[in-house]
Amino acid sequence: MKRLKIKLKGVQKGLFHDTFYWVIKSSWFKFLFVAMIAYLLINSFFASLYYFIGAEIVNARPDSYWDAFVFSFQTSSTLGFGHYLPKSDLAHVIVILDTFSGIFYVAIVTGLAFAKFAKASARISFTDNIIVSVFDGVPTLMFRMVNSRETHIVDVNLNVSALIPYVSKEGMHMRRFHKLPLVTSHNPTFSLSWTVMHQITEESPLYGMALKEIQENAILVFVSLTGIEDVLSQSIHASHQYPTESFVKATKFVDILDTTKKDNYTLDYARFHDYE
Amino acid sequence: MKRLKIKLKGVQKGLFHDTFYWVIKSSWFKFLFVAMIAYLLINSFFASLYYFIGAEIVNARPDSYWDAFVFSFQTSSTLGFGHYLPKSDLAHVIVILDTFSGIFYVAIVTGLAFAKFAKASARISFTDNIIVSVFDGVPTLMFRMVNSRETHIVDVNLNVSALIPYVSKEGMHMRRFHKLPLVTSHNPTFSLSWTVMHQITEESPLYGMALKEIQENAILVFVSLTGIEDVLSQSIHASHQYPTESFVKATKFVDILDTTKKDNYTLDYARFHDYE
Amino acid sequence: MKRLKIKLKGVQKGLFHDTFYWVIKSSWFKFLFVAMIAYLLINSFFASLYYFIGAEIVNARPDSYWDAFVFSFQTSSTLGFGHYLPKSDLAHVIVILDTFSGIFYVAIVTGLAFAKFAKASARISFTDNIIVSVFDGVPTLMFRMVNSRETHIVDVNLNVSALIPYVSKEGMHMRRFHKLPLVTSHNPTFSLSWTVMHQITEESPLYGMALKEIQENAILVFVSLTGIEDVLSQSIHASHQYPTESFVKATKFVDILDTTKKDNYTLDYARFHDYE
Amino acid sequence: MKRLKIKLKGVQKGLFHDTFYWVIKSSWFKFLFVAMIAYLLINSFFASLYYFIGAEIVNARPDSYWDAFVFSFQTSSTLGFGHYLPKSDLAHVIVILDTFSGIFYVAIVTGLAFAKFAKASARISFTDNIIVSVFDGVPTLMFRMVNSRETHIVDVNLNVSALIPYVSKEGMHMRRFHKLPLVTSHNPTFSLSWTVMHQITEESPLYGMALKEIQENAILVFVSLTGIEDVLSQSIHASHQYPTESFVKATKFVDILDTTKKDNYTLDYARFHDYE
Repeated sequence: MKRLKIKLKGVQKGLFHDTFYWVIKSSWFKFLFVAMIAYLLINSFFASLYYFIGAEIVNARPDSYWDAFVFSFQTSSTLGFGHYLPKSDLAHVIVILDTFSGIFYVAIVTGLAFAKFAKASARISFTDNIIVSVFDGVPTLMFRMVNSRETHIVDVNLNVSALIPYVSKEGMHMRRFHKLPLVTSHNPTFSLSWTVMHQITEESPLYGMALKEIQENAILVFVSLTGIEDVLSQSIHASHQYPTESFVKATKFVDILDTTKKDNYTLDYARFHDYE
Repeated sequence: MKRLKIKLKGVQKGLFHDTFYWVIKSSWFKFLFVAMIAYLLINSFFASLYYFIGAEIVNARPDSYWDAFVFSFQTSSTLGFGHYLPKSDLAHVIVILDTFSGIFYVAIVTGLAFAKFAKASARISFTDNIIVSVFDGVPTLMFRMVNSRETHIVDVNLNVSALIPYVSKEGMHMRRFHKLPLVTSHNPTFSLSWTVMHQITEESPLYGMALKEIQENAILVFVSLTGIEDVLSQSIHASHQYPTESFVKATKFVDILDTTKKDNYTLDYARFHDYE
Repeated sequence: MKRLKIKLKGVQKGLFHDTFYWVIKSSWFKFLFVAMIAYLLINSFFASLYYFIGAEIVNARPDSYWDAFVFSFQTSSTLGFGHYLPKSDLAHVIVILDTFSGIFYVAIVTGLAFAKFAKASARISFTDNIIVSVFDGVPTLMFRMVNSRETHIVDVNLNVSALIPYVSKEGMHMRRFHKLPLVTSHNPTFSLSWTVMHQITEESPLYGMALKEIQENAILVFVSLTGIEDVLSQSIHASHQYPTESFVKATKFVDILDTTKKDNYTLDYARFHDYE
Repeated sequence: MKRLKIKLKGVQKGLFHDTFYWVIKSSWFKFLFVAMIAYLLINSFFASLYYFIGAEIVNARPDSYWDAFVFSFQTSSTLGFGHYLPKSDLAHVIVILDTFSGIFYVAIVTGLAFAKFAKASARISFTDNIIVSVFDGVPTLMFRMVNSRETHIVDVNLNVSALIPYVSKEGMHMRRFHKLPLVTSHNPTFSLSWTVMHQITEESPLYGMALKEIQENAILVFVSLTGIEDVLSQSIHASHQYPTESFVKATKFVDILDTTKKDNYTLDYARFHDYE
């Protein structure tokens, strides 16, 4: 889903918060790779200290940056083979700082690794389109969701809102969210596919609007889902945005659940987005 | 509780998420055992690097895979006895990678261990059957729950829904969840056993159905409970599913709470599922 | 608050869950002390392996359990000074297991330490008594709470219920929780003291009951509070139980907030429980 | 926002809880700096033990505190170069305690580092003033909020309350929170700026009050916001307090959103607090 880019002028950023944010969003391989590069950079910094300040290291060639680098690595990782050894007082002081960098590095990487695991990650897929159809004789908006993990989400609450333009008596232009009542907005369990329906009755803020009026008003629909992942007992959350271009006239979504084999259903994700 | 098996065609999986999922579900002994095997495999990989690439290690026999394995272990665990020592530049590079694998291993295992502890695990037991009885002169569905930990769960909310078939005017077949109003759906504290009751009055979606009709319609009941564990201050959750076969006609569940000794009640779990 | 002791017959326990539970409840000093004892026990186990199996250790006296113990400690902690060294293949194998025990130990202790920190711990104090007084001309139950941390709790929701005996038409004896409506049940912020009031109007399940009837029916009041700690942004929770003996007739609680110094209030906890 | 200082007399404090609290509130640099100082202090303690008790250390000068300090550091960090070595039994015992301090230090710092990352930190800015304006012909209180992170907060619930003086029939003086109904109190997504409006209709607890009466009654407004950060899937929370002096008469807040470039909006934070 393409999102509007927003630039905030005059707002200060938080380095550590942004790091955290990046780590959570990245893949594991990217994360581990960048963590390794970071370690080597910190290590290089301390290697440079030993090398340029001229801190004496037993068995290391004084003119070798590589030896300083290897010693720094054996120190910050707390390997401490003992072949290379700090000799001068200066070397001992740098060893202390070097080791601190290692301890804090491990603390932070461990914290981040846990945060990546712990992040409750629902994988809910939403159909590309909202279809304008008819249900029980009433014009109805429909979209479909699928739970892409082989888990059950329980106590699922669904909130669907439409962003509708409004002008106040004083002439203030604004757009306001209006809740769209659903045929079913709470499900005790969600494990397969769920077709969400909003009937455009008199209670609907879209009452009297056909597809044409919806698109003229550039109405946007926002979906937000909360629930509890059954095995991990974690709160999960998913959201999706339907721009006005995604509304289409159709009868229904193509059936994707194959129930021919008893107790062993198959859900064909390939046709998930299709309608007829 | 046997669950329907669902196969998702065309959905990509996440290796790390599945690992996490497996770890949370496994027993601690299984987890620690698999973690150890994983460590030995990673270690073997680096031992092979030293051995086949021919990286020189002081005091190690060049033709001994075992020596390479032991050195690799002393390295990745940051033991670093210093008897075996990396000699060539190539050996030093592999040592760095080997140590990284150790640091990341510890970070990940620590994160997983914490996740296993932190997982709020309610242990609520549900009776095997829902009984169809009479309460205050009204036909009533009843099941019983027991809190199997010696803790108090507070602010308990209970949600019971029935999955009932429905056919729309357009001929679309579907099954929809309907909430079943309960005699008590919120309890400030839950520490012993709780008999949950749904009276089949006019407000009930099951109104007019006897046991026979309930089973003909293959009606399924889904239970979902949320609350806060008192000592750990953690949100907890439990859910259970009653298939249509589990409905039986009975008067009441057998009394299992022995209150003869004052201030020292005994709850006999052996007769928990029994009704009369 | 003294709690009823409950014994569960026939329910299996979880070792790791109980450990976790104990750790969260214990003081930090107790936790660190027991963690240290546990480490020494694990260490003794591996020391015994080296000693009794006769695994060769360089520089260690073969007949010294103390040397085996020291070597085991240097191994599992990954100190690895390198003075004592594993010699035989058997020694190398035990070193691997010994080091694993150390890695898992650190992983588990780190996880537990974090869990102890992370546990959101509200410290709400409740008055010993519920007083039966009059407010706005209506008989009113009152108790007082104080936030014993110098923090703000925001979005506070309070739930007060009474456990009242009930006999069904079929003669089933039971006790049911009934919510007591409060003068104020939601507070956007709670940082000082809060006097909670339930007016015994017609809407009250206690309507028509004087103190005498309340105590004859052995009515118990259960209080449950949820909110968000402002600085840590953590959900917090507190609960309290008032037995029927704690109800007393009184006019009001003694005023404990000294507001004579502007912008620097003092709350005198010593008189917190007193009423007049 | 300046807050009232409150002193609690007679309430015991928790050292570890206060540490945690301090760590969460501090900047990362402050945290790492204090953590390092703490490590050096613990290290000095064990160095003093070796030095004053006279525990023998191989290769260390017996009269050098610096050598004892360096050895202690190499021990507690599990570096264990092996140049300095514990010799006497007493030295071995102190080594064990020294190493424990290091293991627990790492466990606690890792836990705290994670807690700092994990703390969901919304950065919502609130305008300095509440303006008393007119909306749809009705007198209306308005303030503005901006989401200062480039993230979306979804499922946002807003709660605004006024603290209003009250005297009971019995002459008890008190101040009570009253909820102020909002034009929009729930937003499915909040990523830019949001102007919150309370219309002073008959339903408002402020009905009939002009700016003058509001300030005479020293009415204070408390804002509390909860939502879910979209990427991290974390619950977030923010709160703000408007003292009675912050109420001003104005028409509207200055427009700060520049939408001239399509798909690339700019929000000028510099004029955020301004009204006209």
